[in-house]
Amino acid sequence: MRVLGIDPGLRVTGFGVIDVIGQARHYVASGCVRTPSDATLPIRLKSIIDGLFAIIDEYRPQQVVVEQVFVNVNPQSTLLLGQARGAAISAAVMRDLPVAEYTALQVKQAVVGHGKAAKEQVQEMVKRLLSLEGYPQSDAADALACALCHANHHGSLVQGLAAKGFRIKRGRLA
Amino acid sequence: MRVLGIDPGLRVTGFGVIDVIGQARHYVASGCVRTPSDATLPIRLKSIIDGLFAIIDEYRPQQVVVEQVFVNVNPQSTLLLGQARGAAISAAVMRDLPVAEYTALQVKQAVVGHGKAAKEQVQEMVKRLLSLEGYPQSDAADALACALCHANHHGSLVQGLAAKGFRIKRGRLA
Repeated sequence: MRVLGIDPGLRVTGFGVIDVIGQARHYVASGCVRTPSDATLPIRLKSIIDGLFAIIDEYRPQQVVVEQVFVNVNPQSTLLLGQARGAAISAAVMRDLPVAEYTALQVKQAVVGHGKAAKEQVQEMVKRLLSLEGYPQSDAADALACALCHANHHGSLVQGLAAKGFRIKRGRLA
Repeated sequence: MRVLGIDPGLRVTGFGVIDVIGQARHYVASGCVRTPSDATLPIRLKSIIDGLFAIIDEYRPQQVVVEQVFVNVNPQSTLLLGQARGAAISAAVMRDLPVAEYTALQVKQAVVGHGKAAKEQVQEMVKRLLSLEGYPQSDAADALACALCHANHHGSLVQGLAAKGFRIKRGRLA
């Protein structure tokens, strides 16, 4: 299963692609889509979508994961972030990809083990879990963490079903 | 010039299409895109985009206008509205259409004459200005009001340029 994690933002949208094979997670790619800072909102949203389309078309993920964002203290920032998030999800659904959502708490618990981890701890664990040589950029690390979180939840879902006596055969319950 | 006005919302997205010919404004179409209330956020955003694509492909507007939304008192609502707005703008820019934005104040001033008009006054003036037989649904009326506002601003821009000695010929300054 190939998973694309997205950490949406109006200025910088991080992305991270991993392959999930049983309990193994393999790094495929990560980076950022940056929008022109002097552009209007519609142009910025278009550059987020165009960037994500290029990533989806190149890496062909089967699942997309987007972090459920914090509601910011500043309502105007919340609105801007909501619009960027709307554009990012739009890009995924326009390519007919299923989109999963996790809270920041779930993502941090999945990769660091507790929900109050700092950004640096997320970067450190993403580097270790994916055997990276260097630290990924902060937004890219968050996107990879989302993808890792989804891999774990997907895994534990399968294990949970197995414990209940179900088996999954060719993607269907048997 | 054909203008598509959009009043985005996660549950109901109003739309209105008008033709602007000199000082005349002609009603073309209006209505709502409703999203399935039990669906996930990504599915709802997809239905907004699919609905707007169908409208754009049928009516082929040259300009899209989206109202700049109020920042809601409830931050969670602001985030949801932001996401719906992001999806609506995404639909327009994916069809390579220019998107103009006006505040609710500008829209109300343009159609009612003052910025504190009630929803019913907007509906009433939209009905009169476009010689409609009945009242359009509230979200559709807001979308038509956006389109009318843009027509006026576009008009006054042209008049302003004319006053400065410029002429517009085939869409270019001459």
